[in-house]
Amino acid sequence: MSDVYKMTEIVGVSEKSFADAANKGVERASKTLRGLRWFEVTEMRGKIKDGKIAEYQTTMKVGFKLDE
Amino acid sequence: MSDVYKMTEIVGVSEKSFADAANKGVERASKTLRGLRWFEVTEMRGKIKDGKIAEYQTTMKVGFKLDE
Amino acid sequence: MSDVYKMTEIVGVSEKSFADAANKGVERASKTLRGLRWFEVTEMRGKIKDGKIAEYQTTMKVGFKLDE
Amino acid sequence: MSDVYKMTEIVGVSEKSFADAANKGVERASKTLRGLRWFEVTEMRGKIKDGKIAEYQTTMKVGFKLDE
Amino acid sequence: MSDVYKMTEIVGVSEKSFADAANKGVERASKTLRGLRWFEVTEMRGKIKDGKIAEYQTTMKVGFKLDE
Amino acid sequence: MSDVYKMTEIVGVSEKSFADAANKGVERASKTLRGLRWFEVTEMRGKIKDGKIAEYQTTMKVGFKLDE
Amino acid sequence: MSDVYKMTEIVGVSEKSFADAANKGVERASKTLRGLRWFEVTEMRGKIKDGKIAEYQTTMKVGFKLDE
Amino acid sequence: MSDVYKMTEIVGVSEKSFADAANKGVERASKTLRGLRWFEVTEMRGKIKDGKIAEYQTTMKVGFKLDE
Amino acid sequence: MSDVYKMTEIVGVSEKSFADAANKGVERASKTLRGLRWFEVTEMRGKIKDGKIAEYQTTMKVGFKLDE
Amino acid sequence: MSDVYKMTEIVGVSEKSFADAANKGVERASKTLRGLRWFEVTEMRGKIKDGKIAEYQTTMKVGFKLDE
Amino acid sequence: MSDVYKMTEIVGVSEKSFADAANKGVERASKTLRGLRWFEVTEMRGKIKDGKIAEYQTTMKVGFKLDE
Amino acid sequence: MSDVYKMTEIVGVSEKSFADAANKGVERASKTLRGLRWFEVTEMRGKIKDGKIAEYQTTMKVGFKLDE
Repeated sequence: MSDVYKMTEIVGVSEKSFADAANKGVERASKTLRGLRWFEVTEMRGKIKDGKIAEYQTTMKVGFKLDE
Repeated sequence: MSDVYKMTEIVGVSEKSFADAANKGVERASKTLRGLRWFEVTEMRGKIKDGKIAEYQTTMKVGFKLDE
Repeated sequence: MSDVYKMTEIVGVSEKSFADAANKGVERASKTLRGLRWFEVTEMRGKIKDGKIAEYQTTMKVGFKLDE
Repeated sequence: MSDVYKMTEIVGVSEKSFADAANKGVERASKTLRGLRWFEVTEMRGKIKDGKIAEYQTTMKVGFKLDE
Repeated sequence: MSDVYKMTEIVGVSEKSFADAANKGVERASKTLRGLRWFEVTEMRGKIKDGKIAEYQTTMKVGFKLDE
Repeated sequence: MSDVYKMTEIVGVSEKSFADAANKGVERASKTLRGLRWFEVTEMRGKIKDGKIAEYQTTMKVGFKLDE
Repeated sequence: MSDVYKMTEIVGVSEKSFADAANKGVERASKTLRGLRWFEVTEMRGKIKDGKIAEYQTTMKVGFKLDE
Repeated sequence: MSDVYKMTEIVGVSEKSFADAANKGVERASKTLRGLRWFEVTEMRGKIKDGKIAEYQTTMKVGFKLDE
Repeated sequence: MSDVYKMTEIVGVSEKSFADAANKGVERASKTLRGLRWFEVTEMRGKIKDGKIAEYQTTMKVGFKLDE
Repeated sequence: MSDVYKMTEIVGVSEKSFADAANKGVERASKTLRGLRWFEVTEMRGKIKDGKIAEYQTTMKVGFKLDE
Repeated sequence: MSDVYKMTEIVGVSEKSFADAANKGVERASKTLRGLRWFEVTEMRGKIKDGKIAEYQTTMKVGFKLDE
Repeated sequence: MSDVYKMTEIVGVSEKSFADAANKGVERASKTLRGLRWFEVTEMRGKIKDGKIAEYQTTMKVGFKLDE
């Protein structure tokens, strides 16, 4: 019960959707950060090219437990 | 024109997507609350397990008309 | 490097999803505004009918370059 | 001194003014909720028809005491 | 159902009240923008002169449908 | 052009309306503070009694020029 | 995994501390709402009497699971 | 009912807790400002020394009645 | 006194500073929009290249009077 | 360690820059308020004249220690 | 005077109080991060079990100096 | 297109200006973090000494690409 967590802000990018961008961000972050537990979306932006959405960017905070 | 509406905050949960979580929240809420009219997403969070998004949580306000 | 951009707020609407609503908004806006570059989602709302989400509304700011 | 209050969000609607919309919301809510004590305006929106404001919508939180 | 709306921010000014300022803003905006549908108040400010409120300024976003 | 202004937060109270509450706040403040120039509404709250709005409270910042 | 939660806003009051106010709010709410799971503090206010804090008010959202 | 209140922002500081910091702020403010009625916490910060919290800072707005 | 103003959001860009970016935005906007009166900075961002700030971006709302 | 601070909101104005406006505000405020310690910028606005920024307004909170 | 600081967001957890949760977060963070100087509380949440608060979670940003 | 970015919050400090503080923060951060791409200012504060601004503190988020 004396756990301490850390939160880090990342931006996932995808050509398909915000959901895919979020998943890519989580997958990449989990390579470096052990024990990711939860995430919170803080911003959704993207790029437009030739009148269509060309890139989805999902900014989110991810939380993980610090080792004791 | 003298309508009065009430807003209630709910959280839908899904393994698939935020959209699915929103739909589940709306469907469950409409069992209890008659006449849901609109919703507004207020937060998107979720759980991560083994480096992947394992649970999507869509928090939203839903509005419905109060009987006269 | 002396570029100036303008941002305009639009609302896309779709029966399918927030993503589809965003795409429709961007496609319609690009008919009138030349050179759309990016977008930021500012609100996600919608209508409920018969206990299901019947309409997704994605409000977003879109940015485009002003001609020199 | 061990009082507990609950807050509920409602939307009053009026053709006349935001004030009238607020009053209608409070009057309707007080039919169902005993002992309303205070309110806080959280949003003011409305509908436009033929170039004039046709409907005022006052969103507000109302607070009332829970029985012990 | 594939409607797209645009939102524009205006400031109405009046010597009488915020309500009058909102109405003036909507009426003037509807001369230029076809099909105004809704508005949201975003700010209420004003000027003071000789210890009295001399000018009410209602800032609001107005939304209208883009032609297909 | 080297003017400096100060802003003070006050709450006006009225039985009639938010507008009347704002005016009462400005009038009382101008007795003590010379040269009030502008105001910004930051909160609108009130009391409810017997199912009706019994008191309007308009919180606002008022700005005035500091003497050189 | 298809859980739906509801959030309700309450205000706990105490003469001792914000913590005590939060606990009183949670205890009273749990008499009416089955299965409270989590809470989030949204506001901390209070009353002052004779130059001392006389009442602590902790506003919080409490979340609970809706039965399927 | 034509009361007017003023709000002032203060920061209380304590080595013990945020609660103690709030009380110290209120006690000191009440020496100068007659008739403090309520307070709202707006920020909680502090200093860290040698890996421990060494100073609690509670920022709050305090409200008091202006004499008629 | 029955003036109506419109606000538009623009982003000025400069290699030198946020101030220069703001000025460039205002100068370019004034070519298209008659009678710009005021501006409000809403965001300050920029690009980094080789460990130095390479581009300043000042986002701001500019207000201008609509012709009667 | 039982220090209490007060925060006051001021607006500095300058023809040159936001920085100059901030400095002018601080210098003027320090004539009246003893012991200014820190400041926080809360808003940056200004006036436009003939297509150029003619006046910079830096709104900021300044904090100072209350005598014991 | 050319110091640069970094801020990291952590969540401390405690069965006792928000204060204890904050202290645990700071103590754990200081094992890994040299020279923690200050913190700011950004969120207070918790878990409820059997109608009582069972876990306090204090989210905060902690700041520390980067070595030159 | 499957890029993932990380954002880190830093505070640059300078005796001269917010711009200089931002630059110092970016330069120091780029010693440790490879590939800084963009920044966003989140807060501008500072210290006052003898009635003048003695220290500018620019808080900002800096973003950089995570290696694949």
